Amino acid sequence: LTAEETGDTTLGEDSETQLGLFGSLDTTAAMAAATSDSAWLQALLDFEAGLAQAEAEAGLIPPPAALAIRERCLAGNFDVESLGRGAPAGGNPVLPLVRALVDQLSDESGAWVHWGATSQDAMDTALMLVAKRSCQLLQVDLEGAAQAAAQLAERHRATLQVGRTLLQHAVPSTFGLKAAEWLAAIGEAREVLARVEATGLAVQLGGAAGTLAALAGSGTKVVALLAKQLQLAEPVLPWHTDRVRTVQLANSLCLVAGVSAKIAQDVVLLSQTEVGELREPESPGGGGSSTMPQKRNAAISVAIIAAYRRSAGLAGVILGGMAQELDRSTGDWQAEWTTVTELLRLTGGVASRLRHLLSGLQVDEARMAANVSLTRGGIMGERIALRLRQPLGGARAQGAVETASRRSAAGGTSLGAELGREPDVSRELSRAELDELADPESYLGSSQEFIDRALAQRPGPPQEHA
Amino acid sequence: LTAEETGDTTLGEDSETQLGLFGSLDTTAAMAAATSDSAWLQALLDFEAGLAQAEAEAGLIPPPAALAIRERCLAGNFDVESLGRGAPAGGNPVLPLVRALVDQLSDESGAWVHWGATSQDAMDTALMLVAKRSCQLLQVDLEGAAQAAAQLAERHRATLQVGRTLLQHAVPSTFGLKAAEWLAAIGEAREVLARVEATGLAVQLGGAAGTLAALAGSGTKVVALLAKQLQLAEPVLPWHTDRVRTVQLANSLCLVAGVSAKIAQDVVLLSQTEVGELREPESPGGGGSSTMPQKRNAAISVAIIAAYRRSAGLAGVILGGMAQELDRSTGDWQAEWTTVTELLRLTGGVASRLRHLLSGLQVDEARMAANVSLTRGGIMGERIALRLRQPLGGARAQGAVETASRRSAAGGTSLGAELGREPDVSRELSRAELDELADPESYLGSSQEFIDRALAQRPGPPQEHA
Amino acid sequence: LTAEETGDTTLGEDSETQLGLFGSLDTTAAMAAATSDSAWLQALLDFEAGLAQAEAEAGLIPPPAALAIRERCLAGNFDVESLGRGAPAGGNPVLPLVRALVDQLSDESGAWVHWGATSQDAMDTALMLVAKRSCQLLQVDLEGAAQAAAQLAERHRATLQVGRTLLQHAVPSTFGLKAAEWLAAIGEAREVLARVEATGLAVQLGGAAGTLAALAGSGTKVVALLAKQLQLAEPVLPWHTDRVRTVQLANSLCLVAGVSAKIAQDVVLLSQTEVGELREPESPGGGGSSTMPQKRNAAISVAIIAAYRRSAGLAGVILGGMAQELDRSTGDWQAEWTTVTELLRLTGGVASRLRHLLSGLQVDEARMAANVSLTRGGIMGERIALRLRQPLGGARAQGAVETASRRSAAGGTSLGAELGREPDVSRELSRAELDELADPESYLGSSQEFIDRALAQRPGPPQEHA
Amino acid sequence: LTAEETGDTTLGEDSETQLGLFGSLDTTAAMAAATSDSAWLQALLDFEAGLAQAEAEAGLIPPPAALAIRERCLAGNFDVESLGRGAPAGGNPVLPLVRALVDQLSDESGAWVHWGATSQDAMDTALMLVAKRSCQLLQVDLEGAAQAAAQLAERHRATLQVGRTLLQHAVPSTFGLKAAEWLAAIGEAREVLARVEATGLAVQLGGAAGTLAALAGSGTKVVALLAKQLQLAEPVLPWHTDRVRTVQLANSLCLVAGVSAKIAQDVVLLSQTEVGELREPESPGGGGSSTMPQKRNAAISVAIIAAYRRSAGLAGVILGGMAQELDRSTGDWQAEWTTVTELLRLTGGVASRLRHLLSGLQVDEARMAANVSLTRGGIMGERIALRLRQPLGGARAQGAVETASRRSAAGGTSLGAELGREPDVSRELSRAELDELADPESYLGSSQEFIDRALAQRPGPPQEHA
Repeated sequence: LTAEETGDTTLGEDSETQLGLFGSLDTTAAMAAATSDSAWLQALLDFEAGLAQAEAEAGLIPPPAALAIRERCLAGNFDVESLGRGAPAGGNPVLPLVRALVDQLSDESGAWVHWGATSQDAMDTALMLVAKRSCQLLQVDLEGAAQAAAQLAERHRATLQVGRTLLQHAVPSTFGLKAAEWLAAIGEAREVLARVEATGLAVQLGGAAGTLAALAGSGTKVVALLAKQLQLAEPVLPWHTDRVRTVQLANSLCLVAGVSAKIAQDVVLLSQTEVGELREPESPGGGGSSTMPQKRNAAISVAIIAAYRRSAGLAGVILGGMAQELDRSTGDWQAEWTTVTELLRLTGGVASRLRHLLSGLQVDEARMAANVSLTRGGIMGERIALRLRQPLGGARAQGAVETASRRSAAGGTSLGAELGREPDVSRELSRAELDELADPESYLGSSQEFIDRALAQRPGPPQEHA
Repeated sequence: LTAEETGDTTLGEDSETQLGLFGSLDTTAAMAAATSDSAWLQALLDFEAGLAQAEAEAGLIPPPAALAIRERCLAGNFDVESLGRGAPAGGNPVLPLVRALVDQLSDESGAWVHWGATSQDAMDTALMLVAKRSCQLLQVDLEGAAQAAAQLAERHRATLQVGRTLLQHAVPSTFGLKAAEWLAAIGEAREVLARVEATGLAVQLGGAAGTLAALAGSGTKVVALLAKQLQLAEPVLPWHTDRVRTVQLANSLCLVAGVSAKIAQDVVLLSQTEVGELREPESPGGGGSSTMPQKRNAAISVAIIAAYRRSAGLAGVILGGMAQELDRSTGDWQAEWTTVTELLRLTGGVASRLRHLLSGLQVDEARMAANVSLTRGGIMGERIALRLRQPLGGARAQGAVETASRRSAAGGTSLGAELGREPDVSRELSRAELDELADPESYLGSSQEFIDRALAQRPGPPQEHA
Repeated sequence: LTAEETGDTTLGEDSETQLGLFGSLDTTAAMAAATSDSAWLQALLDFEAGLAQAEAEAGLIPPPAALAIRERCLAGNFDVESLGRGAPAGGNPVLPLVRALVDQLSDESGAWVHWGATSQDAMDTALMLVAKRSCQLLQVDLEGAAQAAAQLAERHRATLQVGRTLLQHAVPSTFGLKAAEWLAAIGEAREVLARVEATGLAVQLGGAAGTLAALAGSGTKVVALLAKQLQLAEPVLPWHTDRVRTVQLANSLCLVAGVSAKIAQDVVLLSQTEVGELREPESPGGGGSSTMPQKRNAAISVAIIAAYRRSAGLAGVILGGMAQELDRSTGDWQAEWTTVTELLRLTGGVASRLRHLLSGLQVDEARMAANVSLTRGGIMGERIALRLRQPLGGARAQGAVETASRRSAAGGTSLGAELGREPDVSRELSRAELDELADPESYLGSSQEFIDRALAQRPGPPQEHA
Repeated sequence: LTAEETGDTTLGEDSETQLGLFGSLDTTAAMAAATSDSAWLQALLDFEAGLAQAEAEAGLIPPPAALAIRERCLAGNFDVESLGRGAPAGGNPVLPLVRALVDQLSDESGAWVHWGATSQDAMDTALMLVAKRSCQLLQVDLEGAAQAAAQLAERHRATLQVGRTLLQHAVPSTFGLKAAEWLAAIGEAREVLARVEATGLAVQLGGAAGTLAALAGSGTKVVALLAKQLQLAEPVLPWHTDRVRTVQLANSLCLVAGVSAKIAQDVVLLSQTEVGELREPESPGGGGSSTMPQKRNAAISVAIIAAYRRSAGLAGVILGGMAQELDRSTGDWQAEWTTVTELLRLTGGVASRLRHLLSGLQVDEARMAANVSLTRGGIMGERIALRLRQPLGGARAQGAVETASRRSAAGGTSLGAELGREPDVSRELSRAELDELADPESYLGSSQEFIDRALAQRPGPPQEHA
């Protein structure tokens, strides 16, 4: 895939996949292609081709038949619509696909198609293949997002910003630390996703009821060969009704959407008219309003949050669908295909948007500084209360700062000035000491160290893109 | 829509809408069309046309401009792909659509397009229109399913079937009562859906922040005119961030899927190889297995259950998305469009499948009768224990029947015979009395009355299809 | 219940119910009592008492036995712990309860306990009774919240406030309209809840498998008598595996939490340090921080939002649990009891907090006015762009206002001044006209009318508390 | 904990924790204790004690003060109810707890309590401690369940059982393979849980806004000391609004419930009256019915499934709660505490029940064998169709077997006999060959190898319980 090689996964421009009225809001052209009907069809065919090849290597079917089968296993040789029309009868498109494949072969070769496999073997393996290819796209965008977050953390490590808890001003912090937190969260989600890619995405091959009866004594050998060929993990057992793998996949995708939504939520809040510390990247027409020319909406962040909301609902379907019946489920399994596909699509859009958002994020350092001063020293209250705790005791210290805080808020005066008027305080602290304590830059604790830790934690670029 | 008029909503055959590799598993061609990008586009245009017309009637914009606008508001005049490409910038396709509409008009007329409205007004109203049209399709299939259930209830009112609780044989019942329960549940879901259609699907018009400021003093008048024109309910207030309506819509759709899945679950269980009381309708290739010629899978029911699992996850997104921020949400609202559309699609497939399933359901009365006898009288245990409770007291009565039940199960003898060997029992009941008590047909309680009540409860055909 | 009569449902003070470490964060003492183990136990006993009474009236059991049964049906006569220990064997506490009840009676009376009923009859009816009593508490608090919202709407109908969409300043509005929107949403949720109370909460009585076999020909008569006695609706059929009723109950409770969370979300956002328009009610220690004396956290609102998040997850369990098997489910039904109970508890806490929040909400009109001016006329951009659309055409009008908006934002000048410097604008509008257009009070559209509509929509106090 | 040491975690018998009316259905006494208010309180105190100790070691507070603090940090010194009453004001019980702790100390020592920490530090760390202790209980029961599954796999490796897909008979298998699949799934869930325990459960310490400002330059040192002391992982950064850890915890618990529910679902289905292959362990009164003495309900399995349904809903709350605002969330975080606690409780009940279920599961080998023969050779259809595919071609082979299958089903004859009557078949296969092909024991493919792989995969007993 060119998009994957170049890392260019911009939204909707360079693919022939039709994105539709909402599609480009949901995903990228590259991810739309990776999860399209064609991609699914090719993945099903990759299973059939790989199976034939593995069975030939294991001596179960004639090599010329395997070769003939593999040569026909290209999506372009099949008609998606016609397969889809045939899907309801058997409950999935494998039966019509196998028939259509057989129809393209000699009787002799056709007889070996899908040998010993069941529909679920094909569907599950195809899902894993679609997921694997999609996850590679995801990782490219997540690496880009992480790089951008790392740059923000580095560049703004000393940019003062107020820490906000429960959306109230709390104590001073730096925007670099905020970006470092974003970076760390992206890294955690990537690590989970990478583990799923490496060990969770496995081939499925069990035959009709998980015994591989039709492969006689060569069943596990074929599984191993097939796994190697499709570059998927080899499972200990068929996992037709053990859905840990799809749950872990769905969970990892939801994590990607979730950490992205946390960042997007922060951007939305820091872009509020009254806050004004961040702005989304400029783009032609971006964030415009249909009626209010003065607005600059955080449209990228909003789209990320919306996709996360949907992702969490979809992941819940997979998480809640584990009680699958005996050797093939009567509903939970069949709910997985489109749900996971949609999760991949949505997460693809999320990761691409996150990269775009962080790469071009506009930081208004002046507004950040102004907001630090907005409470006229109020955010230094904790420091002063702690400083006074030893001489005064906790209750009196807290009381003095609270009283001064209220006067400061009511009168528009500085907290320092009001503290100076508190006898309890002035007895303990000189005006100079109060001024020193009021300096936010000297009350940043371990923030620099935390930033360094987050940056040091960064893995090198993932192997597959090295 | 012809399909709607004729009630013919068969799967995937008579529409030009592309259903794709899984599409025909998920929905019908008619519902795919009713929820397609084209349908959405037309609904957005219906809003713009209706708004212009209402504003002209209210004297806010020149009638010739309104006429010119309305004449261009046909989906065929616009390119879905191009609108989709423009959607991300503003966060939805309304901005590019309004621009494209203006481009097709004279400067004079174009200036009145979308007058005083905001994107959300168009999106929400379009969603309601798409839902309204889709719900009408749903009701046709649900009416068909209800008719079929009513026929089963009537026809099988005396067909003995064992009642199964926790999947264990309990007491005798009739298949007619089972069908009556299905009928009642379908009726309940339809009633909820009909209430949503009648009062929940409302026009949205609030302008930028819900004040309709640009409509001067004519705001509420325009709302009323627009509602009348689009045949949607008129809301008391704009509901930009009050999402009771979309929650009620999603909930009603999930109810439709849920009652259908309950029926499908019953069919799956009653079709088990060991039970064999029901079979899904014959269809060319239906329920076939890719490898096991002897199987008859309940493929229709499985597809219904799978769609319900997905529907519940999607409904959860809407249910969990009510905490929308101030005058327009930053994510929850944007998650609604595709989610509700997908719910409509899935429910459309469910209702059509349910109708098909119930209309052609094959009932094996002989197997039902055989299963009633499977426990050799065991299912009459409750009756006998109750009969003995007064003379013997509850504990002794229960004990006697339990002992006899165990012997009957272990030895393959009838419960009646074993009861006859219990001194406590034989003292109280003659062999003739025991035989009489062992007759399942005389232990059906209110089942006939319940069937009558369910049948009587049936509403006439819904007005809109009269 | 005194709390109900007086409307006093304050948190955790006047009940003996133990609320525990988090309990008072989750619910009120009154709701904790209404949903407690004791309340459940009493509801189960109310079912058994009512059943005996109804069966005596129908001539099925001896009146003296019914009288004896009813006399023992008080929660205080039973040991919750001991019943709980017996619950797992049968899967619910009905079996041990029936045994314990029988043990307290003569053999003759004991033999008629639970006559013809199944455990699910008792559990479902008890759930409905618990829900009914809890919903009455809910409605009291919701009525209080609605009253408070109505007062805010009335009092602040002319209090200017900026409308915020996507958390950006949009156009002027009034805080009264915001409160009216809250009022309308509360009313909608109450209406849904009231409908569930009136028609959805039904008695359950079907016997072992829904036929009421043991009641001979009197089954439906007993159902009617029991429903009347317990003041619950009479169902057409037993609804053992038709869960529309519990779904509708869960959905209505989630709606109550959801509209409350929407209001709470608004309060959190309007209470931000940078916005400062609202403050939660003063309470001893309320909203305090463990370390930052200057903070005033929106602790009430946060607790409401948290409860809603949990409620949506719980409602999803019910919504997703409809595919119940044949005549008694093997898991979905058993997941309902605690889930719905927890929903009632959480919603009780939510409604009480909402009432408290709205009743004491502190409105800073000066900050609201200041924020209206924050963009120096920017929020009047839509009006001016619309005004210019006719003479200039949409694109030029929009362009002129955008250009002026950017200069105003960059330079700290007023939008009006910058517009005056745009030749396109100054040609069309005099300075006086611009000044007039810049007046937010004259650009409030239908807001007053909307407030009136919301107030007029208010139902009288619900009958049950009249 | 004695229960943990001995592995005795039987339901509800050996603890003083009150389980209530439903409690013993939901969890074990040991898990109820590990997640009780007292356990939470002790975990909060462990945080405060550990923090004081770590700060003393880092030279931040006087060692005597730390010692004094630690000496008071026992749950027994505090009143849960009183703390709970104080919780709503601050939004959690930390503020009242800190106050109560200070009250028990001298002014000098009290001034150092909770130094530099924020409420969320205490709550998050306590949640991790509660989770850690609960997960240890879980692992004991899961190890017991795995052992029992391994024994079933070994013992029944050759016990023929029909494989069922979509609840239809498919091909022969063995019950040992089914148990091996259960074993593998339990192992996968345990592995995910163990990873969360080892690396996911981390200390939380960030101070007011994540900078550890009050700890001056010693912040990260204190974090490391505290982590070591509480035996929790040390995070790279504070994770106040990065909730990957709680999502991974919730997901792993849901996985435990999910794989258990899959097993329970199989047991329910295989215990059906018509199937009769499995029975839950005998227990006094276990699985009894309140009215039907002959029934043996799968009450243990049903309770597991019900707990899983609830768990999936609860996990969804955590999964959907990641978009947390800036430095402390306004609702999503606060929804975590009770949700995760409830997940632990439910999973505790599930794991204990699973162990009990598998340890005493009754296997009816004769019924398994009888069911293998139920279709009179029908389940060998795949084998014969494959055998005929080469000579006849796929379509004719499939056709011949289908025709014979239908005649066999209709006439009650054996498939083999009917196949012998098909000319296409009799030409290719002698009666002796057909008989050989009809032997299910020779068509088990890799099932023995799969069993060996699952058994070999078993880890030794987890380190912590070695």
